[in-house]
Amino acid sequence: MTGDLSRTAAEELDGHDELARFRARFVVADPDLIYLDGNSLGRLPAATPAFLDHVVREGWGRGLIRSWGDWIDWAARLGDRLADHVLGARPGEVVLSDSTSVNLYKLAAAALAASDRGVVVVDTDDFPTDRYVVQGLVEHHGGTVRELRSDIDRGLSPDRLRAALDEDVALVVLSAVSYRSGAMPDMAEVNRMAHEVGALVLWDLCHAAGAVPVELAATGADLAVGCTYKYLNGGPGSPAFLYVRKGLQPLLRQPIQGWFGQRDQFAMGPDYDPVEHLDRFLVGTPPLLSLAAVDPALAVVEEAGVERIRAKSVRMGRFVVDLARERLAERGFRLASPVDPDRRGAHVSLAHPDAWRICRALAEDAGVVCDYRAPDRLRIGPSPLYTTFTELWDAVDRLCGVLDSRSYERHARALARIT
Amino acid sequence: MTGDLSRTAAEELDGHDELARFRARFVVADPDLIYLDGNSLGRLPAATPAFLDHVVREGWGRGLIRSWGDWIDWAARLGDRLADHVLGARPGEVVLSDSTSVNLYKLAAAALAASDRGVVVVDTDDFPTDRYVVQGLVEHHGGTVRELRSDIDRGLSPDRLRAALDEDVALVVLSAVSYRSGAMPDMAEVNRMAHEVGALVLWDLCHAAGAVPVELAATGADLAVGCTYKYLNGGPGSPAFLYVRKGLQPLLRQPIQGWFGQRDQFAMGPDYDPVEHLDRFLVGTPPLLSLAAVDPALAVVEEAGVERIRAKSVRMGRFVVDLARERLAERGFRLASPVDPDRRGAHVSLAHPDAWRICRALAEDAGVVCDYRAPDRLRIGPSPLYTTFTELWDAVDRLCGVLDSRSYERHARALARIT
Repeated sequence: MTGDLSRTAAEELDGHDELARFRARFVVADPDLIYLDGNSLGRLPAATPAFLDHVVREGWGRGLIRSWGDWIDWAARLGDRLADHVLGARPGEVVLSDSTSVNLYKLAAAALAASDRGVVVVDTDDFPTDRYVVQGLVEHHGGTVRELRSDIDRGLSPDRLRAALDEDVALVVLSAVSYRSGAMPDMAEVNRMAHEVGALVLWDLCHAAGAVPVELAATGADLAVGCTYKYLNGGPGSPAFLYVRKGLQPLLRQPIQGWFGQRDQFAMGPDYDPVEHLDRFLVGTPPLLSLAAVDPALAVVEEAGVERIRAKSVRMGRFVVDLARERLAERGFRLASPVDPDRRGAHVSLAHPDAWRICRALAEDAGVVCDYRAPDRLRIGPSPLYTTFTELWDAVDRLCGVLDSRSYERHARALARIT
Repeated sequence: MTGDLSRTAAEELDGHDELARFRARFVVADPDLIYLDGNSLGRLPAATPAFLDHVVREGWGRGLIRSWGDWIDWAARLGDRLADHVLGARPGEVVLSDSTSVNLYKLAAAALAASDRGVVVVDTDDFPTDRYVVQGLVEHHGGTVRELRSDIDRGLSPDRLRAALDEDVALVVLSAVSYRSGAMPDMAEVNRMAHEVGALVLWDLCHAAGAVPVELAATGADLAVGCTYKYLNGGPGSPAFLYVRKGLQPLLRQPIQGWFGQRDQFAMGPDYDPVEHLDRFLVGTPPLLSLAAVDPALAVVEEAGVERIRAKSVRMGRFVVDLARERLAERGFRLASPVDPDRRGAHVSLAHPDAWRICRALAEDAGVVCDYRAPDRLRIGPSPLYTTFTELWDAVDRLCGVLDSRSYERHARALARIT
């Protein structure tokens, strides 16, 4: 049932928002800009510039090479914090490293190499780079890709997954929250189904981490990767994380054998001899400044708590869906996300044949930044730590203005390189 | 012939140093600390903190996701600058990406996959991670490692290389400057020898880039990787670079098929379809803050010019070798680098049975930071942009003090995790 959808109602929701005070923990350089793309790049935490400047001037400038004595552990320490507060994993199961794509390659390659099976199940709805990485992997290492054809609005169908699973399957690669629709499969159910046929599951947590409570240990997850620059606000291209269930760690061996996985790294022995634990999935020197920016960002998420973030996110998602039903349906928009909040992450997708041009017009003429995703989706990504209900109301109102004035028709139809 | 080796002579060398003014372009937080480890982590350029702060506050904080419209080209733009000013390569042949180890994996894997041969030649004297990566590659992709056993003081012997080359060799992996001894093989000669048997060469330029003029195009180089945090002063773990000769680019396909290599990246099509050019060797989102720090650092190198940096470096190397002969030989040190400056990079290695403890004592008691490398080497790495001749003289003097007082005997014999 739809409640009051007036701007006053939005203001009241903000008035009762227990996370409202966290907005001040972020830099809001232009208060008139409505930023609904925190699921592509999270806002700058207010504490980050000073923290980074300290790392640069004191750590690098004064400490020089000696600072690596401390820095060398940051990837693991941040990983443990992510494990504890965000991912429901145990100490020593999560570490920051490389990009999501490189991590996915490492873990998928390790899973394939450890199996006598050759099939990797992916989904039409997986993020493209995940599919590309798996394609490259089976091409270079041998194997076959088996593709689920999930509904790109409603997400994974457990029946289709069941039909795709058999004893040829080594690995299933899926997203915990779909990058396009926001659809969320039941992680525990998927893990169970895969384990029943003896397959492992590798989760892409990019659109889940920091937005929905992820319970890697409790759902029996095997492997996961994800980025830290969306809901975790680690900054542009901040290092990704990888998760490997404790018991699997000594059994898996990844193919990019860099010296950060080596036992007694600085002995510099002639042959690769990886540690037994999670570091064996590391490769080279981490980009320390980008890594450092994850620290103050994660502190904000930890203080707010993922459960509270999720509770607000569910309210925001419902508000957007209700507003879309009341004001956008008649203007040609269709909900392209699951209706059930329990099956939807933090973002909401709306389909419109002119979505690309509308997205441009919103950004360039109306001060609303959201995302376009192929083929025809406008992706609304409120980030509960800093987005207000009033912003959501205003964004939909500005969107109605763009639609009613047809101002978007001035924008090119073509997809530019960057969305 | 050895000239005047007094401290006054050092001061005079500084007085005539045409690069002396560049020291002010770096942060020297503690003027009493003699930093001879710029070949592990270069000093902080004075312009970097403000530049980074601007990227953080304006690019990320204000521009948010929209800044990627500009950032997306930074890896290529910095690569072109490196190609032009540092590496002797052509536009579109160098790009920043990932870590050195990951890049080495991508390029070596691509070279192996494109060949019907299975042998990769590596050297005992290659940096350990290079050897580990190649070991992992042949283990996962099939193939054999053939190891040169170069002299770890004098570097590659062309005769040994010639003996190792035959028509089973797909790839040769070598360092342009040895991480331990500083030895420099003749790149043009090595490339020619490898090409004669139809093999490619992949150069590790970590200890060369920014210190010695590298002429990738003129020497007919095929492939190269390297880091930007040593003589290029890009900051801890700043992204590495990779080079692929233009003509090879469409012929090689690397195994980590991420979306940054995809034609029309944001169309997000179902199948990997890489661009023909250098971007096909990219994978995921680059760590933008760490990437950004390379920009002001590279500007200093460009302004000074690698030829002038090298000229000073040769003078500094000779000064260290002469001082070592005069004052350190009688104290148990032996030169563990080539004597000929034309065959030596910017650093000088000195062997001593107690090198580990001496290195610790120098850093902790005498304010001289240099590096230990297994098995018994003290690595002196002057960085011509900011190291003075007087610092070199003082460092050797303090080293004599440590040796004569035997103060190093208080330090543990064991190799700690970080050097």
